[in-house]
Amino acid sequence: MARVSQEHLDARRRQILEGAIRCFARNGFHATSMQDVLRESGLSAGAVYRYFTGKDELITAIALHVFDRLEEAFTEAARLRPSPLPDEMAGYLAGSVFAGGDPALPPELAVQAWAETLRDERLAQVLRGGFERLLGLWTEVVEDYQRRGLMPGDVPAGHVARTVLGTMQGFVIQRALFPGADPAVLADGLRGLTSMTRPDEPVREEGPEG
Amino acid sequence: MARVSQEHLDARRRQILEGAIRCFARNGFHATSMQDVLRESGLSAGAVYRYFTGKDELITAIALHVFDRLEEAFTEAARLRPSPLPDEMAGYLAGSVFAGGDPALPPELAVQAWAETLRDERLAQVLRGGFERLLGLWTEVVEDYQRRGLMPGDVPAGHVARTVLGTMQGFVIQRALFPGADPAVLADGLRGLTSMTRPDEPVREEGPEG
Repeated sequence: MARVSQEHLDARRRQILEGAIRCFARNGFHATSMQDVLRESGLSAGAVYRYFTGKDELITAIALHVFDRLEEAFTEAARLRPSPLPDEMAGYLAGSVFAGGDPALPPELAVQAWAETLRDERLAQVLRGGFERLLGLWTEVVEDYQRRGLMPGDVPAGHVARTVLGTMQGFVIQRALFPGADPAVLADGLRGLTSMTRPDEPVREEGPEG
Repeated sequence: MARVSQEHLDARRRQILEGAIRCFARNGFHATSMQDVLRESGLSAGAVYRYFTGKDELITAIALHVFDRLEEAFTEAARLRPSPLPDEMAGYLAGSVFAGGDPALPPELAVQAWAETLRDERLAQVLRGGFERLLGLWTEVVEDYQRRGLMPGDVPAGHVARTVLGTMQGFVIQRALFPGADPAVLADGLRGLTSMTRPDEPVREEGPEG
């Protein structure tokens, strides 16, 4: 039997994942069969089942693959000092990761994965772990803003990090569902928010109901 | 045959919708049958099918019902002058609408509906219409900030509106999937962003890659 290199195994695994991503993005998790994935990746059932026992395992592997890519891009951006401003950073990440990189991470896939966590606890754990890591990276960036005096120190950095990450999750939804979502729109939006001048006094003491 | 008042018809329709919302939030769209909805709403098949021909129609009706509620709450908040700041407004809306109002709108339902649009074009249209209306309301608020000199006029108001709406969509995802999403966290995050001081010069000319 021929010896198969690790490189060859990794390349084949990637070929299956990328075929599956294309299938899922096109037809959704539920309407895609393992047969479709075989056809799309151009491999035999024997080859594919050697790597993945079934659809759920494939979905989880895709989620891990996606979070590796996200973490790589976020880490690279988060390590820059001085930290780029939120609009520069989120606009860049939205453009490089969600709006057509290579390999493409279609936003439709993220939207489906979020819904899928409601019935797949293993996937939910993968997504929670990935979210926590991205949150940690953004929190360091916000702490850098605070150290440099660009943001008041009395706002919990983790809460700002969650909100910025929320703008990116919102961008993914808008990109998948509503026309007009562009990385430059997100960058403009964050530039607008971070350019605000708050009145010395709160506009009103309480929320709108107060 | 007894005459049935419009009020009675509306109340019954609402009873079915609320039963369906509970079923869908608990078990998901795919694992919920019309039989489950009948049981949950305590009505006969004849009564339910009089209002809705099937599950897809029920899901679309729920989406319309949800956007009516959202639009009502957003309109009320968006009409206040001077407009509350983004943190006050989004924090209030997240608390009143997404984090337990009456009738409750479970965030799990929104996450499922977003995914469902990928296979249901009628639902996609309802969600796109609803999104456009909420976007219009937020755009008016941002224009009010600009008129009052709280935000530079060179940032497209619609882009800021999209981004703030994105923070709320992100909040819904985090509320459904990740522990720790609280309306006060979103309010803190937006307070942090709108309290930022941008350096006179851009931190760097280009994005992180520049």
